[in-house]
Amino acid sequence: MAPELKLLSLWASPYCMRVAIALNMKKVQCEVIEEDLRNKSDLLIKLNPVHKKVPVLIHNGKPICESLIIVEYVDEVWPEDGTRQAILPKDAYCRAMERFWADFIDKKIFPPAYFALRKQGDEQQKAIADFYESYAILEGALAKVSEKPFFGGKKLNFVDVILAPLACWLLALEELAGINVNKCESYPRLCEYFKAVREHPAVANVLPDDKKESEHFRKLRNL
Amino acid sequence: MAPELKLLSLWASPYCMRVAIALNMKKVQCEVIEEDLRNKSDLLIKLNPVHKKVPVLIHNGKPICESLIIVEYVDEVWPEDGTRQAILPKDAYCRAMERFWADFIDKKIFPPAYFALRKQGDEQQKAIADFYESYAILEGALAKVSEKPFFGGKKLNFVDVILAPLACWLLALEELAGINVNKCESYPRLCEYFKAVREHPAVANVLPDDKKESEHFRKLRNL
Repeated sequence: MAPELKLLSLWASPYCMRVAIALNMKKVQCEVIEEDLRNKSDLLIKLNPVHKKVPVLIHNGKPICESLIIVEYVDEVWPEDGTRQAILPKDAYCRAMERFWADFIDKKIFPPAYFALRKQGDEQQKAIADFYESYAILEGALAKVSEKPFFGGKKLNFVDVILAPLACWLLALEELAGINVNKCESYPRLCEYFKAVREHPAVANVLPDDKKESEHFRKLRNL
Repeated sequence: MAPELKLLSLWASPYCMRVAIALNMKKVQCEVIEEDLRNKSDLLIKLNPVHKKVPVLIHNGKPICESLIIVEYVDEVWPEDGTRQAILPKDAYCRAMERFWADFIDKKIFPPAYFALRKQGDEQQKAIADFYESYAILEGALAKVSEKPFFGGKKLNFVDVILAPLACWLLALEELAGINVNKCESYPRLCEYFKAVREHPAVANVLPDDKKESEHFRKLRNL
């Protein structure tokens, strides 16, 4: 019997997209239940009482929360085989390095990007400055990977699963915060990265349309 | 030949204590190099150029940064055997649960505790309120563990390695922020927890004296 797998999700959330990408890499089917964050479901509050946030993966009735933790869980439950790709490598040092960059992206790339999109004035300017600083560090890290285009070389790795969903925020970052992340002379590897990410079979059907995401943030601003 | 193992550390840092506890559980010897954070060593800046923070574990010349990532690395490199205790369990769901609470402690317990000790006025009051909210959640989580006294029952687990160093901040929290975490009627399980933690052989020699830690924060305030 196939495992019962459900994902409490939000179409616009890159944290939820990470889980969807991981499940795609594992060729695992999952029922997606769309949440309304202005009117959270009883199920969400029951299954994630601490943070009350999506994504929540429900596997045979048991909830797993927090995107990085869910992605590691997915990698452990459905290990690499003929059809399923590995997310984390076997070597302990390589695992630690991937966890380091995934953590950096989670703490230093997504939060300032989000605040650059949601805040105004001084708070926005501070977020934009923080984002540029972290983005330059990320470009440097990717430039050290000899094989192009991903952090995992030709294949996606853990870092890629965590970073890839940023692709759908790039237009919004440009339109709403004036952040020119598409300036390929400054970020040649990341520019190439996000082009390749959009076309990757495990990612392509997960990312919403850039314009829809930008419009979503524009509406949130005007609420 | 024994592996060459060094730890860039700071005696007052609970993040560094986590690594020392993990190494004790694995019965692994390590040379501790004390850093001066007001005058960071070239080695620290070279090995952790992104965050420039301790702890950094150096294993056969290669650096690993960020305490949660280091503890997982230590658990993977020196797995459970007759003399070495496991830190994370084998079951994927149990691993995800331990990672969830370790992450909660890292994000929702230590940062407000630190700000309660370092800030004044409104910022301190906000930190104190955040701390109390998270501490009550943590008490509830520990109360659900049937076997006392640790999150791992009779043995330390990953959650315990991450939380245990808070023991040495409790006096400072009381003296400098008026947080009465030793009020055992409000936090019976955590009260019992920190008593047991202080006597655990993998923790006892790692924790600095409470009074020395409180004095350390008092001095930082007056700088």
